[in-house]
Amino acid sequence: MQALWLENNQLQLRHDIPIPQPPPGEALVRVVQAGICNTDLELIRGYYPYKGILGHEFVGVVEQGPTELQGQRVVGEINAVCGQCHYCQRGQSTHCENRTVLGIANRHGAFADYLSLPIENLHRVPDNLPTDLATFTEPVAAALEIQQQVMVSSTERVLVVGDGKLGQLVAQTLALTGCDLFVVGRHRHKLANLSARGINVGFADAIAKRAFDIAVECTGNPAGFELARRALRPRGILVLKSTYAGQLTFDASSLVVDEITLIGSRCGPFAPALELLASGRVDVEPLIQGHYPLREGLKAVEQAKSKGVLKVLLDMSDQ
Amino acid sequence: MQALWLENNQLQLRHDIPIPQPPPGEALVRVVQAGICNTDLELIRGYYPYKGILGHEFVGVVEQGPTELQGQRVVGEINAVCGQCHYCQRGQSTHCENRTVLGIANRHGAFADYLSLPIENLHRVPDNLPTDLATFTEPVAAALEIQQQVMVSSTERVLVVGDGKLGQLVAQTLALTGCDLFVVGRHRHKLANLSARGINVGFADAIAKRAFDIAVECTGNPAGFELARRALRPRGILVLKSTYAGQLTFDASSLVVDEITLIGSRCGPFAPALELLASGRVDVEPLIQGHYPLREGLKAVEQAKSKGVLKVLLDMSDQ
Ligand SMILES: [Zn+2]
Ligand SMILES: [Zn+2]
Ligand SMILES: [Zn+2]
Ligand SMILES: [Zn+2]
Repeated sequence: MQALWLENNQLQLRHDIPIPQPPPGEALVRVVQAGICNTDLELIRGYYPYKGILGHEFVGVVEQGPTELQGQRVVGEINAVCGQCHYCQRGQSTHCENRTVLGIANRHGAFADYLSLPIENLHRVPDNLPTDLATFTEPVAAALEIQQQVMVSSTERVLVVGDGKLGQLVAQTLALTGCDLFVVGRHRHKLANLSARGINVGFADAIAKRAFDIAVECTGNPAGFELARRALRPRGILVLKSTYAGQLTFDASSLVVDEITLIGSRCGPFAPALELLASGRVDVEPLIQGHYPLREGLKAVEQAKSKGVLKVLLDMSDQ
Repeated sequence: MQALWLENNQLQLRHDIPIPQPPPGEALVRVVQAGICNTDLELIRGYYPYKGILGHEFVGVVEQGPTELQGQRVVGEINAVCGQCHYCQRGQSTHCENRTVLGIANRHGAFADYLSLPIENLHRVPDNLPTDLATFTEPVAAALEIQQQVMVSSTERVLVVGDGKLGQLVAQTLALTGCDLFVVGRHRHKLANLSARGINVGFADAIAKRAFDIAVECTGNPAGFELARRALRPRGILVLKSTYAGQLTFDASSLVVDEITLIGSRCGPFAPALELLASGRVDVEPLIQGHYPLREGLKAVEQAKSKGVLKVLLDMSDQ
């Protein structure tokens, strides 16, 4: 089959990859569409070691699996877990000690004609939810993880730092809580997506210092972190939603004096993400900026890398 | 009066300081004893700008104040607050926007014959609690702040990093929760204080990685932070209890991947601290390693600075 293969920081389109043979408990999924994410770009840049097929955001159709899923459109949770370890037993299976992660760690990913995932990872896509939107299930779930970790109530003043792919989804999901939300970004056209939905937006100079109860850092760069930190009131909560290249340096004393809480946030729940997408309460349509067939995958990644571009999609069926 | 005065990183013993004249709402306290804390040493090193009389841990006797406090031994909360601002109104007055802090920020401290503090800051010292022990009220309260911020239950595995003044008090207060506690330090004789109380102790090489639910960093140095970070399981909580010189650098991506929570922790509640000291459930006696009269204050600070020394006390009455 065809696949985008990463090895030694080199992404290549290969045609010689065998179709995966799912072990017991896993399903064979024909990939229909996949989304390119910043994590993919960071893996390509070599921030984390990974060798194999890239990609973890997808919609597919089950080709081999349980009867009730056969032929159905599905999305899939990316952590394949053991079910046995301390974390799995405690209901924190995204932290499974023995996990493999689709297209990220020790498991081939979704930028391919086929993938294999544990059956328990798969979620049916509601019939009324177009594939283009369902492909965003994984990142929307990741955005929802914030609300699993932090109580966000309508009285809270919340700042989202970053107007990129992640910031857009984080902002839209947080807006649903009714909190007093502000999104700071650098791109007028990206912020416009959000203000069209009634979300308050602006540039960095519009941010009051020490004014926010919660700040969510979605840029992955130290300047974004600094901005989020300074915007927080004492006892505020800073959510680190983005992955970071390398080390982050901060003023630990001010963190102690202001008794700030810093929380790292990763994968989230798929079921509510699918619901929000199906009901249109989260609208990802404006984020889509490119469609490529898998055979033009390298070009797609180039577009995803370019400044100011939001989501680029790979269409596998479209060969 | 006599006082230890800090100016331009220079600590000097002065005799020309006027006795403070308490404004309305404040009491004049004759200082009986004061403790030298790492924060004092950091202020001397110039980590934070401060000019004036140093010192914030003390026991005194009220000379001018409300009748019921007159002549009584008291300890005092160090934040003098406005009662009006957002934080004061929300019961978070230690973060008062208009606060002054005894011997730390815009308010003369306790290394003097007299000090002035708001009456509401003062707590009577129980008759059965010796002054030598009551002087530890402020740091014991700070240790208790951890339990105001993090639920520490008996099932939790908790690591305290550091066997210094702060680590000793943090360990003793955490031990009272019945949690599964381990203290890592570098000094056999300091760790012995804790193992004498039935607390498990050891050196860094004894620490299992990714094994603790909560880690409390009490060293104030990056190596201690690293140790605490590595000891935490995914979804673990890292409490920063110490002040830090300058910037701290850490691997933000691993914080996100492991969904670690980092919490800065500062001043805590005085009433339970006094109770724990009075009942002997927290024993600070073994921490006392020096007594000096105020006139030998510079010598006292020198001893406090020397490696391996725990608490050094200044006795004001002992002129
Ligand atoms: Zn992703
Ligand atoms: Zn597991
Ligand atoms: Zn102190
Ligand atoms: Zn106030």
